[in-house]
Amino acid sequence: MKMKAFMNEDFLLSNETARRLYHDYAAKMPIIDYHCHIDPREIAEDRRFETITQVWLGGDHYKWRQMRSNGVEERYITGDAPDREKFQKYAEMLPRAIGNPLYHWTHLELQRYFGYFGTLSGETAEEVWNLCNQKLQEPGMSARGLIAQSNVRLVATTDDPVDSLEWHQKIREDASCPAKVVPAWRPDKAVNLEKPGFAGYIAKLAEVGGKEIATVDDLLAALDARLDYFDKMGCRAADHGLDYMVYEEAPYSEINEAFQKALAGKPLTPHEIEAYKTALVLALGRGYAKRGWVMQLHFGALRNTNTAMFRKIGADTGYDCMAFHPGTDALAKLLDALELTGELPKTVVYSLNPVENQAIDTIIGAFQGAGVHGKIQHGAAWWFNDTKSGMTEHLTSLANLSILGNFIGMLTDSRSLLSYTRHEYFRRILCNLIGGWVENGEYPNDVEFLGKMVQDISYNNTKAYFGFDC
Amino acid sequence: MKMKAFMNEDFLLSNETARRLYHDYAAKMPIIDYHCHIDPREIAEDRRFETITQVWLGGDHYKWRQMRSNGVEERYITGDAPDREKFQKYAEMLPRAIGNPLYHWTHLELQRYFGYFGTLSGETAEEVWNLCNQKLQEPGMSARGLIAQSNVRLVATTDDPVDSLEWHQKIREDASCPAKVVPAWRPDKAVNLEKPGFAGYIAKLAEVGGKEIATVDDLLAALDARLDYFDKMGCRAADHGLDYMVYEEAPYSEINEAFQKALAGKPLTPHEIEAYKTALVLALGRGYAKRGWVMQLHFGALRNTNTAMFRKIGADTGYDCMAFHPGTDALAKLLDALELTGELPKTVVYSLNPVENQAIDTIIGAFQGAGVHGKIQHGAAWWFNDTKSGMTEHLTSLANLSILGNFIGMLTDSRSLLSYTRHEYFRRILCNLIGGWVENGEYPNDVEFLGKMVQDISYNNTKAYFGFDC
Amino acid sequence: MKMKAFMNEDFLLSNETARRLYHDYAAKMPIIDYHCHIDPREIAEDRRFETITQVWLGGDHYKWRQMRSNGVEERYITGDAPDREKFQKYAEMLPRAIGNPLYHWTHLELQRYFGYFGTLSGETAEEVWNLCNQKLQEPGMSARGLIAQSNVRLVATTDDPVDSLEWHQKIREDASCPAKVVPAWRPDKAVNLEKPGFAGYIAKLAEVGGKEIATVDDLLAALDARLDYFDKMGCRAADHGLDYMVYEEAPYSEINEAFQKALAGKPLTPHEIEAYKTALVLALGRGYAKRGWVMQLHFGALRNTNTAMFRKIGADTGYDCMAFHPGTDALAKLLDALELTGELPKTVVYSLNPVENQAIDTIIGAFQGAGVHGKIQHGAAWWFNDTKSGMTEHLTSLANLSILGNFIGMLTDSRSLLSYTRHEYFRRILCNLIGGWVENGEYPNDVEFLGKMVQDISYNNTKAYFGFDC
Repeated sequence: MKMKAFMNEDFLLSNETARRLYHDYAAKMPIIDYHCHIDPREIAEDRRFETITQVWLGGDHYKWRQMRSNGVEERYITGDAPDREKFQKYAEMLPRAIGNPLYHWTHLELQRYFGYFGTLSGETAEEVWNLCNQKLQEPGMSARGLIAQSNVRLVATTDDPVDSLEWHQKIREDASCPAKVVPAWRPDKAVNLEKPGFAGYIAKLAEVGGKEIATVDDLLAALDARLDYFDKMGCRAADHGLDYMVYEEAPYSEINEAFQKALAGKPLTPHEIEAYKTALVLALGRGYAKRGWVMQLHFGALRNTNTAMFRKIGADTGYDCMAFHPGTDALAKLLDALELTGELPKTVVYSLNPVENQAIDTIIGAFQGAGVHGKIQHGAAWWFNDTKSGMTEHLTSLANLSILGNFIGMLTDSRSLLSYTRHEYFRRILCNLIGGWVENGEYPNDVEFLGKMVQDISYNNTKAYFGFDC
Repeated sequence: MKMKAFMNEDFLLSNETARRLYHDYAAKMPIIDYHCHIDPREIAEDRRFETITQVWLGGDHYKWRQMRSNGVEERYITGDAPDREKFQKYAEMLPRAIGNPLYHWTHLELQRYFGYFGTLSGETAEEVWNLCNQKLQEPGMSARGLIAQSNVRLVATTDDPVDSLEWHQKIREDASCPAKVVPAWRPDKAVNLEKPGFAGYIAKLAEVGGKEIATVDDLLAALDARLDYFDKMGCRAADHGLDYMVYEEAPYSEINEAFQKALAGKPLTPHEIEAYKTALVLALGRGYAKRGWVMQLHFGALRNTNTAMFRKIGADTGYDCMAFHPGTDALAKLLDALELTGELPKTVVYSLNPVENQAIDTIIGAFQGAGVHGKIQHGAAWWFNDTKSGMTEHLTSLANLSILGNFIGMLTDSRSLLSYTRHEYFRRILCNLIGGWVENGEYPNDVEFLGKMVQDISYNNTKAYFGFDC
Repeated sequence: MKMKAFMNEDFLLSNETARRLYHDYAAKMPIIDYHCHIDPREIAEDRRFETITQVWLGGDHYKWRQMRSNGVEERYITGDAPDREKFQKYAEMLPRAIGNPLYHWTHLELQRYFGYFGTLSGETAEEVWNLCNQKLQEPGMSARGLIAQSNVRLVATTDDPVDSLEWHQKIREDASCPAKVVPAWRPDKAVNLEKPGFAGYIAKLAEVGGKEIATVDDLLAALDARLDYFDKMGCRAADHGLDYMVYEEAPYSEINEAFQKALAGKPLTPHEIEAYKTALVLALGRGYAKRGWVMQLHFGALRNTNTAMFRKIGADTGYDCMAFHPGTDALAKLLDALELTGELPKTVVYSLNPVENQAIDTIIGAFQGAGVHGKIQHGAAWWFNDTKSGMTEHLTSLANLSILGNFIGMLTDSRSLLSYTRHEYFRRILCNLIGGWVENGEYPNDVEFLGKMVQDISYNNTKAYFGFDC
């Protein structure tokens, strides 16, 4: 076998069928980024970046973790070292990170957005720094420019129920935005009654809704009103980030009592916490079903594991890990409870721990619904699993146990506007997997049909599933 | 690498050694289907099928799940839609199910039993429908015809202790049956004291045995008498389907008390349920050891997850899932308790969740016994794992941690007489794995020795392990 | 693809880059065996072996398990059968164990130490027996001879805190030893208060220290004095073998009470056991941090599962298994507690159950430290995972989620002086993985840089990480 050149146009495409599927079909498809953490203000204001360090190291905890693993001091990571020095530390780390997706994402971004086809290392850092910073001044490198050149049709951000969605409103009023931008509903602060700040959050929600929230029923009514507002603003999806999946039944009185205790800052039992959360997710799930929204359930994360660093620099700074707290048994009960009354919304399930992949793929198969191609989905390999092997294993399990052709495909889950290259990464891996099956005689060599399937997974399925108008 | 034609004679055989091992050695071996769910009446009466829908969609919940995942309405699945329309829905789903074992099983069955070498889709459904239904009228397509043409030497069905085994008796008296048909003992209804219908079942067992069952000791005596009867009827294997593996010690008085409560329909604690089940499995295990039978232990299934559908169409309709309830620690204790008194029977262990593969492979290694090649076995990749990757991972783990050459190989676990092609599927995957090792210099190129090993795993090991006389 | 010859010089090296990396870079590197179970007396006395059975079957429970899985009677395994007959039984088993690492290790040892390039089987057993036993008489086949010819620079044994380290002292005084030999600290007997013999062990420790041990504080002081002694003797690493990972906080009074109960032989609650163990590991961890030592944490083993055999032949005889008792959530808490006070030592984590691989790889990333390349490490695939697929999966996960270039690489964990070939096995697998990425265009074709990286992982990283002076 001839050696392939480093990350050339056939990157990750190991066979002829894969190459045809990718180049002739997948590559040209637009992007719907149905789940990301981009600040809508950046799009509204068409933000520009001064240095590549701002873009890459401003908030990307993937990169921060890697730098720490290389023994880099925190001042070069989240501290006050100059941008140029931070970039140097990142560049010096990179070549040691062979096999890491950051190695690929970094070079994909350098190739696609900066036209740089060399490799980044301590030696080339100066050259890349200069090139990138110069390039960042070009018109096409603003927030909207990046969205346009990435062929993005729709971006769904992540928004709190109390959010005014003012930046979304501004974007809606601005015909020049190259993509549709819609909010997504993330009610975690209303669900996590055991977290600090819960009472204050409920007060805020009451203020936004203009009505007192004294009971769980009041709370659900307030949330329902906000659901209506989000719906009006184009929202089609909700997302729940649960540390672990819960299903604990309890009468309303108990749930309301737990709520009162939480408001009063009193300690809660695990039963109370889980019963309240279950009740909230069920009630909200019914609200999503009524509106035809998609419910996303994320679980399996161990958050803020490093207390010393949490005290210094707070949450989402690279100290979250995979939990080993299997949630699939509880998941089945939750879906069952919603299905029992005919109120199960379209649902996408993600676990951070890939040991749950197969169990999830069997559970989604037990709650599908007539008239939808894949009503219950196993979401794309999430976060730490967003790797070549992680995606391949996710797709293989999904194909084994469900219908791959109905999959809604990739999302970025990212804060960065350069992360759209992860869609390319995913599509290459998808085409390679399918191409390999064809070349191995496991599926008919019908490239036209498969090309259509690959386009569905890249774009069409997502559009139809969420009902996006883009 | 040249592209392989779709599912030709070298399907799944990627190298020359694999091809030689499969074609020259494995393919010709007969089949012992030591674990299936075929109704012995179908064999006794030599049942015939009118339509391919009856054969494929009459009871196959694998296919039902897939159709639901494609958004098909239930009336085309288990409902009253005409056979032709149901078949159409299945055919339309199939091409989207790339990477799914159903895609391969469907085409293997079309090739081997119907001589159809095209591909099934919505477009070809009419042609395939006509061809299959015509072919089903031929003499060789009856229950016995299918058994004969599949080169099956022995079929072990799955039977309840109260079963009269009348159909087995009829088959025994009929010299024209092309294969030996024996019962297998499945005492789940006597073990699952927490399930509805338990008291009625015990009453039935008392009636069959002609003796009152008032205590656990009475129950064990009644079961022991039935073990004798099954043994006389050629039974060599028992099977336990446990939702999760249990090991909970308790004195007889407690176990008997739990039994009394169950008979009286009173609620049981988890401790009582687990203690009773443990006692039953231990007592039965000793009975198997005494008779030289094989004990099969299946665990890790989450049953009937969809309550709404369970109420409509009952159990075994495609709503079971993988549980995530690791059972290997309890398994070790159960085997230990039996081994301690020298009463551990030959045992085959299966978990539905493949995350337990490696742990199981280490545990079987701690309870082997002199004089048997692989007294404790890790059964073939079960149910949802019955895929190319699932089997490959199972075999790789088994080879890593045990002795692959002693493996007893494949079973169908199926209700359908066309499922014998799964043995072919397994053998191809096995030969490919071994062939790959040889081609890669990891094992000597001794095709004669390996051919014998492959034949052992395909047939000879099974025959010797169960002590079947066929 | 051309078939490769059986285990030739390119064994496990599937591509040209892999071959260059292995032959030109990795093969020549010396070995630091930073974790093994070799008896230092064997090195001090330069032990010789009379038969290959003594070397291979004297204490290797991997081989014992395999023989039992083949139905061999115990007298040919740990019993009184003649050495020649035991060897015959092993040789007869081996060819059936295709895909098992023992097949490779056996032949690597035959090739490297005995110059035998055939294959071992029942037929060749006589020839191999004679050859090996003759070869064992040569000067280079003594303990030190084997160490010298294996290019071993340093051996770290496994030693109890009460050990006098007299054999280490003798080796230090003997300039002719070809490698440095240092102790490693294994305080399990002081930690496992629930195990038989605990009180006697504490008494022994008091005697060695010359001070009464009446409280946990006394115990920690006694251990601290022994840490000083081990440190003086060149120790740079501790190892904890925990059945499962614990983290249970409790005040000193409770912990001391648990200690008193254990000394008095009174029963302990799980909470008491876990609280005591947590306190000991934390206190010792601080002691390691103070001295710059490395803390190794092993968990996930189910020990002595077969009670009947445990009573006959004791521990470490092949009846340990993988536990399914996930420990990563507790691990995160333990590391967090140490980090919170700035007393987290360099730490290497190992779980016996590979389902924890990915979770571990995320957790190590949350506790790294400035100034060390990979302060927290995920140790090499351990024990049952010490296979081609096990190592490949471990390395892939580590590369995905951490920095592969900082990995400290392989150890033998072995009682046998022939096991150094496992370093070769590991290096070949490592080079093959990296070479595959390069050939597939996933990493630049910079063999010089990668050769250096492979040498780092083989030797340099280990030396720097432990601070070994060799």
